[in-house]
Amino acid sequence: MKSDRILLNVERLHEQLQHERLDAIVGTAPENVTYMSGFWALSQWIRRGPQAYVLWPAPGKGEPEIITSTSTLDLVADQSVWISKVRSFGAFHVDQHSKVRLTSSSEAFASLLKVPNQADSLSALVAALQSAGIRRGRVGIDEIGLMPGQFETLADRMPEIEFVPAASLLRNVRRIKTAEEVFRLSRIAKITERSIEAALAVASTGVTEAELGRAFHSKTVQDDALPVLGCIGFGERSALPNVLPSQRKLQEGDVIRFDVGGRYQHYRADIARIAAFGDPGPEVRRYHAALLAGIQRAYEVIRPGARVADIFDAVVETVRREGIGHYQRSHVGHGIGLDGYDAPSLTAASTEILEAGMVLCVETPYYELGRWGLQVEDMIVVRPDGVESLMTTGGDLIEVAP
Amino acid sequence: MKSDRILLNVERLHEQLQHERLDAIVGTAPENVTYMSGFWALSQWIRRGPQAYVLWPAPGKGEPEIITSTSTLDLVADQSVWISKVRSFGAFHVDQHSKVRLTSSSEAFASLLKVPNQADSLSALVAALQSAGIRRGRVGIDEIGLMPGQFETLADRMPEIEFVPAASLLRNVRRIKTAEEVFRLSRIAKITERSIEAALAVASTGVTEAELGRAFHSKTVQDDALPVLGCIGFGERSALPNVLPSQRKLQEGDVIRFDVGGRYQHYRADIARIAAFGDPGPEVRRYHAALLAGIQRAYEVIRPGARVADIFDAVVETVRREGIGHYQRSHVGHGIGLDGYDAPSLTAASTEILEAGMVLCVETPYYELGRWGLQVEDMIVVRPDGVESLMTTGGDLIEVAP
Repeated sequence: MKSDRILLNVERLHEQLQHERLDAIVGTAPENVTYMSGFWALSQWIRRGPQAYVLWPAPGKGEPEIITSTSTLDLVADQSVWISKVRSFGAFHVDQHSKVRLTSSSEAFASLLKVPNQADSLSALVAALQSAGIRRGRVGIDEIGLMPGQFETLADRMPEIEFVPAASLLRNVRRIKTAEEVFRLSRIAKITERSIEAALAVASTGVTEAELGRAFHSKTVQDDALPVLGCIGFGERSALPNVLPSQRKLQEGDVIRFDVGGRYQHYRADIARIAAFGDPGPEVRRYHAALLAGIQRAYEVIRPGARVADIFDAVVETVRREGIGHYQRSHVGHGIGLDGYDAPSLTAASTEILEAGMVLCVETPYYELGRWGLQVEDMIVVRPDGVESLMTTGGDLIEVAP
Repeated sequence: MKSDRILLNVERLHEQLQHERLDAIVGTAPENVTYMSGFWALSQWIRRGPQAYVLWPAPGKGEPEIITSTSTLDLVADQSVWISKVRSFGAFHVDQHSKVRLTSSSEAFASLLKVPNQADSLSALVAALQSAGIRRGRVGIDEIGLMPGQFETLADRMPEIEFVPAASLLRNVRRIKTAEEVFRLSRIAKITERSIEAALAVASTGVTEAELGRAFHSKTVQDDALPVLGCIGFGERSALPNVLPSQRKLQEGDVIRFDVGGRYQHYRADIARIAAFGDPGPEVRRYHAALLAGIQRAYEVIRPGARVADIFDAVVETVRREGIGHYQRSHVGHGIGLDGYDAPSLTAASTEILEAGMVLCVETPYYELGRWGLQVEDMIVVRPDGVESLMTTGGDLIEVAP
């Protein structure tokens, strides 16, 4: 390992490999490749199709290896990657002047251009498995990032290996965050809160949802994150769950709903806040207070060992008791990390138990068509003794004077 | 059809359906769902896993239909969608006050909450095919957006239908752009050029790549687009093909390479420009002029009927003759649209022929490790009489005074 700030929960991965009697596991989806190696393979993140893998053998069964296209090796060289064994596939042409001495990332890139190379991604994966001495046994493969037919082709090419779909195993490993993951999630939560503040700073009569959206995303960019989720709606449009900013103008009495979050060093935020432009009336205040009470109840009951289903019940019952008797939800939150929806999902039917190290979005959205949508959503970490909030603001109704 | 600004090339899709003797086709990947319907299904674009489909029967065989999760129906209601038949899957709770009269998007959303609903995405797709009267015959299915195993499950559930992988057919339809697509591509090309200008406006001794990156993305956001590709490198870092902005400081004599492009109304840009901060020396000037001559040659030879392989040869030969005798490339460009790499790819081995309506990125990158990377990349439309550039700037070396 080249870095002490690794994202991967190595211990948990090894436990899972042992539990599932796997000799190795292969990450293929963008979030799993980044999670297992620190390598963010640009092309794989912005398009469907480009392949990059991380092969991770069980302890004592070989060294982890990155398998990626030659055209992306500079990113391996230039990022905080903790896997040093790399294999490439495909051709990519880079020149080098005979008299220039290379330094830092250029030097690392030049070395990587000499690693073993195969014609295509699956041939490289087969070679990597063989190089690790894995020619039979059981290998988990994250099926999500493969293209159709690749799983079958791989099984045909290495018939003595039993390949097992393993996306759910990796999702399960990812649910308990490492310190570096919590650090990044905390950063993006705060960047998102500041972006809401920046958006509200331009709120005035006649300003459009799109103008607030621009102010929101601009602040996210200024704080070194990238825009992802930017649902911002005024008045009756705030009741559209996925509202995309439009030319709707702000009017006195409007609710402004934010369900938003950027990406900082590949980690996502997803938080919600409600502002009122002038007096929104007593019903909005009462309903919002009920939704906030639900979140506050979540802070009281979330702790390691708590049943997810009990959290769901406690939150929904609180919202009902505190002011929205007819409140209905299919979930009151979800994990978050490299993916916007990590495990667990906070549902009534869940059989899961909370554990220290989970990072959760807890949320109580309420959509009333034609009137308004209200929502409080916080990001929190489950700690041994309860809850640590990643937020600097409470979920109170934010009053903006017209 | 509800709109006259549709993205889909309907005529070309129908030709392909007839040519492949298909009774219908199903789009599943995010770009194909948006392309065929105008519906941008947020969750599908920002995560792997969420499903949304467009079923498009051959002429005379039924009406097109959108199949999406109940939680995304507000986006169908609130966007310029030209398919009016919709089917949903899964549960999502929205309230409605009995005395509030709905208007516009809220009303459309309320109607959509009453469309036929199935438990899961494949059940909804099966029901949609049955509803269109398609119970046997040949159906193309875009295999890229499906999760592993779904193709097989679908085939098992409708054994009298022959399902045929059809991602490549849709990619082929997408290669000839409609007027609305060219409009959006033209907009994002110009937004990206202005973002480069905004980044260069902050160039001064000691400024970091990251600071230029922030200025670049901020302008993209201000112009109503979203950041996607932002490779910006100084000096020796400009030779890293996918360079992500770092803390490297700008020094006199540095080359600044931009390989960048945002997303406007879901359409991508991918352009490249080179700036020099102070005098970069005669070799950079000579090499850059050779790369630019390659692009200028592309403008001369690109026309409907031209062989892609001939374009490749003409461009590479020009660069070699004009100053980089050892120039090597695997491609000199590619199509662009909803995907950053649409068909065709401009390679030496291509057997493809250019057609009017293609939008292409033509590019001549040159990476010399340890010294600099140079690159010119323009976005152009193939027109009946030649080339229309989507750029407002030429690819000349941009000289920035320290």
